[in-house]
Amino acid sequence: MSGGHVLALCGGVGGAKLAAGLAAILPPDQLTIIVNTGDDFEHVGLSISPDIDTVLYTLSGLNDEKRGWGLADETWQALAMLGRLGEPDWFKLGDRDLATHIARTHRLRSGESLSAVTASLARALGIAPAIAPMTDDPVRTEIETADGRVLPFQTYFVAEQCKPVARAIRYAGAQTAKPSPAFLHALQRADLGAVIICPSNPYLSVDPLLALPGVREKLIALRVPRVAVSPIVAGRAIKGPLAKLMAELGVGADVVAIARHYRSLIDCLVIDHADASDAPNIAAEGVRAVPAPAIMRTHADRVALARAALAAASG
Amino acid sequence: MSGGHVLALCGGVGGAKLAAGLAAILPPDQLTIIVNTGDDFEHVGLSISPDIDTVLYTLSGLNDEKRGWGLADETWQALAMLGRLGEPDWFKLGDRDLATHIARTHRLRSGESLSAVTASLARALGIAPAIAPMTDDPVRTEIETADGRVLPFQTYFVAEQCKPVARAIRYAGAQTAKPSPAFLHALQRADLGAVIICPSNPYLSVDPLLALPGVREKLIALRVPRVAVSPIVAGRAIKGPLAKLMAELGVGADVVAIARHYRSLIDCLVIDHADASDAPNIAAEGVRAVPAPAIMRTHADRVALARAALAAASG
Repeated sequence: MSGGHVLALCGGVGGAKLAAGLAAILPPDQLTIIVNTGDDFEHVGLSISPDIDTVLYTLSGLNDEKRGWGLADETWQALAMLGRLGEPDWFKLGDRDLATHIARTHRLRSGESLSAVTASLARALGIAPAIAPMTDDPVRTEIETADGRVLPFQTYFVAEQCKPVARAIRYAGAQTAKPSPAFLHALQRADLGAVIICPSNPYLSVDPLLALPGVREKLIALRVPRVAVSPIVAGRAIKGPLAKLMAELGVGADVVAIARHYRSLIDCLVIDHADASDAPNIAAEGVRAVPAPAIMRTHADRVALARAALAAASG
Repeated sequence: MSGGHVLALCGGVGGAKLAAGLAAILPPDQLTIIVNTGDDFEHVGLSISPDIDTVLYTLSGLNDEKRGWGLADETWQALAMLGRLGEPDWFKLGDRDLATHIARTHRLRSGESLSAVTASLARALGIAPAIAPMTDDPVRTEIETADGRVLPFQTYFVAEQCKPVARAIRYAGAQTAKPSPAFLHALQRADLGAVIICPSNPYLSVDPLLALPGVREKLIALRVPRVAVSPIVAGRAIKGPLAKLMAELGVGADVVAIARHYRSLIDCLVIDHADASDAPNIAAEGVRAVPAPAIMRTHADRVALARAALAAASG
């Protein structure tokens, strides 16, 4: 890439970290972050967008680093009272976090799009780059389980803690959802310099974006470098149920499987040095492997990995 | 009265205290508490019923005695975050209190009536007597000010701290609102033994109930003792803007004016011993004055005043 605009596609925690690294490097007007909304759901009447919130909190520095999700200095008073009042309390709504859901729900009900709401929340939190949902239409990721159930994402992920065996993942509503204006604009801009697929869960966090009409085709047709950063390091997911899920879906939990998953969509896959020996197998998928330190523990790690991803795009 | 059912009409703080006193004395199935909803409003998309909440919190013992409103052990994390996100923060939403508003809003939007929601919240909080809104339809108390504005109740009461000079009070929607099923049932039940108008602000908290179609007529026609407890003691409101408001509306802030206000609706007015010398002037309004300790600081005070009101009804 040569100073062009960067389109980052991401889900929650891992993706948000790389997005924060990109935001720390790039001029704000050179970065668009498009976020998965397949995890969105309605809960006690509130419109919750977990991945957007994670990106907002991470990029504003308000996130809780230790817990790994949600806001720092969080308290849980409302949740305890909700339980007392007979409302479900399996989804951990923090008091500070609730404000985001209340504001979002109020603005959506007032007729604002999720794109507009997300932009105004980002602005209020002092975030400079563009953050937008993948779509303003409802898309709901569902997990088909081995015992024949179809679980809404949050039921699978939070209530059942990813314990059910997955057989397939589907993205209800994706076929008719329209990519958000910011997503379409980024895909079409003449100064687009690179696409970065952040190290989010391919099945749960990135595929919903790719399932939107035209997105996969547009990414394939792009004449700019497209780089994915592997969410798998040394055969293990950096976070979450990815390795378990890949096994259940019949693909090996390794960087080669990640390369194969994205093969038509990416030119490069940034992998951890620990997986450098897999570079030939990744090359066999038509993807160039770029080793880098892929585990992000500190802000410096995020910045370094963002630099590596951008370097891979320009290499 | 002789063990019959007691119908208590009340607004927020003072009324809730007497209602708690009544609840401590009477068998649960002998008490119906009908609560003002003229103060209800929508705020950041939440359906808030301040007087119902005060009654719920007071009768469940969860209220904050020191602050005088809201819940004990309250925190304000969501409110601070709402302000940061650009939402209004003039109405003090506590984190625990928010749970009530979230649960209520969710259930109302799911199609439950305010009566059903109130009953289920009361049950969840372990409150035995029936608590019901005055109506399931929207009624909104508005204050016409001397400077020609019409202020929604919470704008007048909280945002402008009752500072504007009031010229008139109106209850938008009251003419077409239907009294709640519990209210109508209590007014019509054969075993009704007494009506107690709690020491709430007559203009802001009790008149909205009386403005509902048929309520005033039914109260006038009742053949059971009807007792009001004065919210004015020694020329001062026990709490809130009542004395200021009465002056602005051109009525003296004293127990005689309270008797005059309710004269066609009540047989007795319980007044504080401090106002005992006004008994003849109250009698001149056709109302029997019953002196009692009318200031409720402790639970024992509430119980004693509830006993005095019930004694007045049976005397």
